[in-house]
Amino acid sequence: MTVFRILRVDLSREHFSEEVIKEDLLKKFLGGRGLAAYLALKEIPRGIDPLDPSNKLYIFSGPLSGIATISSSRVNVTTRSPLTGVYTHANAGGNFSYWLRKSGYDGLIIEGKADEPVYLVIKDGEPKLKPAKHIWGKWTGASTKMILEENGFPPDETKAGVAVIGPAGENLVRFAGIRMSDYERFAGRGGVGAVMGSKLLKGILVWGTRDLYKEVVDRARFMKVNNDIVKRIAVHDTTKTLHKYGTNVLMNIVQAIGALPHYNFGGTGKLKDVTPVSEEYIKDHYPTEVHGCYNCPIACTQMPVVKSGPFKISTTEKYVKQEYESTWSLGPNIGLTDPEANIKLQKLANELGLDSISLGNTLAMAVELVKNGKLNLDVDWGDAGALEYLVYKIAYRDGVGDDLAEGDYRLAVKYGMPQLFSGSRGQGLPAYDPRALKGFALAYYTANRGGDHLEAYTPTWEIFGVPEKVDPFCETQECI
Amino acid sequence: MTVFRILRVDLSREHFSEEVIKEDLLKKFLGGRGLAAYLALKEIPRGIDPLDPSNKLYIFSGPLSGIATISSSRVNVTTRSPLTGVYTHANAGGNFSYWLRKSGYDGLIIEGKADEPVYLVIKDGEPKLKPAKHIWGKWTGASTKMILEENGFPPDETKAGVAVIGPAGENLVRFAGIRMSDYERFAGRGGVGAVMGSKLLKGILVWGTRDLYKEVVDRARFMKVNNDIVKRIAVHDTTKTLHKYGTNVLMNIVQAIGALPHYNFGGTGKLKDVTPVSEEYIKDHYPTEVHGCYNCPIACTQMPVVKSGPFKISTTEKYVKQEYESTWSLGPNIGLTDPEANIKLQKLANELGLDSISLGNTLAMAVELVKNGKLNLDVDWGDAGALEYLVYKIAYRDGVGDDLAEGDYRLAVKYGMPQLFSGSRGQGLPAYDPRALKGFALAYYTANRGGDHLEAYTPTWEIFGVPEKVDPFCETQECI
Repeated sequence: MTVFRILRVDLSREHFSEEVIKEDLLKKFLGGRGLAAYLALKEIPRGIDPLDPSNKLYIFSGPLSGIATISSSRVNVTTRSPLTGVYTHANAGGNFSYWLRKSGYDGLIIEGKADEPVYLVIKDGEPKLKPAKHIWGKWTGASTKMILEENGFPPDETKAGVAVIGPAGENLVRFAGIRMSDYERFAGRGGVGAVMGSKLLKGILVWGTRDLYKEVVDRARFMKVNNDIVKRIAVHDTTKTLHKYGTNVLMNIVQAIGALPHYNFGGTGKLKDVTPVSEEYIKDHYPTEVHGCYNCPIACTQMPVVKSGPFKISTTEKYVKQEYESTWSLGPNIGLTDPEANIKLQKLANELGLDSISLGNTLAMAVELVKNGKLNLDVDWGDAGALEYLVYKIAYRDGVGDDLAEGDYRLAVKYGMPQLFSGSRGQGLPAYDPRALKGFALAYYTANRGGDHLEAYTPTWEIFGVPEKVDPFCETQECI
Repeated sequence: MTVFRILRVDLSREHFSEEVIKEDLLKKFLGGRGLAAYLALKEIPRGIDPLDPSNKLYIFSGPLSGIATISSSRVNVTTRSPLTGVYTHANAGGNFSYWLRKSGYDGLIIEGKADEPVYLVIKDGEPKLKPAKHIWGKWTGASTKMILEENGFPPDETKAGVAVIGPAGENLVRFAGIRMSDYERFAGRGGVGAVMGSKLLKGILVWGTRDLYKEVVDRARFMKVNNDIVKRIAVHDTTKTLHKYGTNVLMNIVQAIGALPHYNFGGTGKLKDVTPVSEEYIKDHYPTEVHGCYNCPIACTQMPVVKSGPFKISTTEKYVKQEYESTWSLGPNIGLTDPEANIKLQKLANELGLDSISLGNTLAMAVELVKNGKLNLDVDWGDAGALEYLVYKIAYRDGVGDDLAEGDYRLAVKYGMPQLFSGSRGQGLPAYDPRALKGFALAYYTANRGGDHLEAYTPTWEIFGVPEKVDPFCETQECI
């Protein structure tokens, strides 16, 4: 019988309990986001402040995480969002879900609030809370490394699953994310990192030796089906392109069809050339490491490094995990096409623990408010130095950064121009202009968490014609 | 009878007491640094860790502070240094000493450690400790503004005296300073900010209406002497030059005589052209505000602003108070002559609350250790982007920044090359190469606090010939 094993961690009482979700419920909700949503609805008290200890964090793997080969090594984080005030979910690739399941649990529920900063360690079913006062304040890269080393691992993120927040989560920035191993994976959206910060939970390490395949009912058949899928996917052009250029191959494509939002969605198409922030250009000009999520042969992660100039990063962990959404939000959407500044901004989002999409949305909102004479700040579109300075100020809620840390929507409201906000349910939109992709517009505005590019990814139809082409401008039933 | 009124603040017990130093002692030690040294020697227990609550901070004005017109608006901070382990003092201009005296006290002694972050407010002899948890973490500019506004002042630093620490002081960076009003004045050296941070004291506001002139025994004569001095000084060329170019007029002069240290004192003279970081160049290329300390007609403070490019700062407080020592340490000493990067680094030192001299010394040490293959870091001389990134990492003790936050000497020792350290008593040297100014070499190595350019400023003799010229290369008694 398939079950879903949960570790419930009450930080207020430093208490652990185990729960097993049985097959009847699992058949309805599978695991991951589905099961988390079901439990969150039942368990999180209505009307609470998302940053109150009574909020809960559901960190759930999916039923195929760690066993299926392609695109299944993802972990879902569900909670009540400090950004939108309602249900949200965020998910990350990497290896966390694999190591979470290996540790003996398929999901974690984090409740309450610690007295002092702590982190959670689970090794083979043995959970432990450890003091994290000495890690509190560290950025995500260093925090991950410290947690690994303190628990007997080399500073190699493939050896265990680690989830941490950075200063942004600690400082309750409403769009702080959770960085996941291995290497700058993010459960980014909705402020899940701020919820973790509000609980004084700095990080989670998961590791174990559980045999995941043992639990597969018909292992031989599973392997056969899995291999068939892998074979079909491996030879597909999309796979090859993703491996070569990552998700940011979309930059030129979306720009070409006029769907790439520029200048806070106010000037889509206004930037004539976004080539320098396309992955084709970046891979041509910067040394780039390619990396994959656990057990995934696509290996679409592009990690470029800038080796000189004003946006060079001096650190031993100098690579930046970079994605299309992040490149867009911290690029064209803030009027910036300098690839080095763009990569640096992505690095800062990752290191300080900010959702790169909402970070770009918020910076774009700030610039537009300045342009409208509402916000007194010396910053312009593409103003790399000034924008970079603001990123730090947001993460530390310093000065005007305290306003920006509230996110794009609240910023727009505070400065009297809510009409500048492009989003749904209070969450800013990602990298596709809904006016150019009517199907995606529908997806945006019906998405449970708001501002979502993942719940119903219509660009496959509207842009790539997979499985079939749909006219992106059509608004009637006939097109479908 | 002249007395020196002290407020003793015990943060552990939240207890205030007043003490009056009588004329007999004052005649020996005057006030300020002298009196503070006397009391520190008597009161601070031997052998303590400088970051232990048993350390004390003496924040003392001088006997002429707030009344004499020229160069007297300075405040001295004395403590046991977390950088050198021994007695240290640091001093700042601005208006803090004026408002301190106006508040009813000539000096403050801060003892113990608060349970939670607090700040101290003194208005007309009424001291009060206020919670500072909401300010903890903010940078120095925003902290100053918040403290002013919370206490009924406009965000105008001339209206009250404010001293604050930034993240560096909070994070016990061994060379954190204390920022003083008005506008980025610093009691910089020796880690006095870390001592304040160790006590969980975020800031101090002083204000009052005490009539300082009432206490002058022969006011008419004092005014006459004072005016005579002002008249003589006002017409002096040095005064005019200082007003026009600030202390950084020294850049070209010291470079011209081959006494400007480059590359961590390892390559003095190697940079052929430091013009772009000279004040003549900066004032020619960047809008610069000129400002003076309280009641001082020299007004030597230069505050340039960089209005575009990768090192532009986006903030409402965009001006950077800039001095020769800071420009040098974050310029030629780290092999950097880009004025915009240089100004940005000074701004970061001021905002994050770091001693700009030791910050430059430490960055220079890091680069030299890299050059010697001892430290694995991707950073080079003049490598503006990488160096800037390190400044943040130092203030937050993140990753390798945790090592750098220990200061140049400890860094050199840790990585096995203490011989690269140029300093005395464990404090790095300021902006004059002692090999080119033998008198100053003597001053450096006999200075009580170590690495000192203030206790015996021989460049007046050795460079300017004031009051008379001394051969800077002479090492025998005959030259004097």
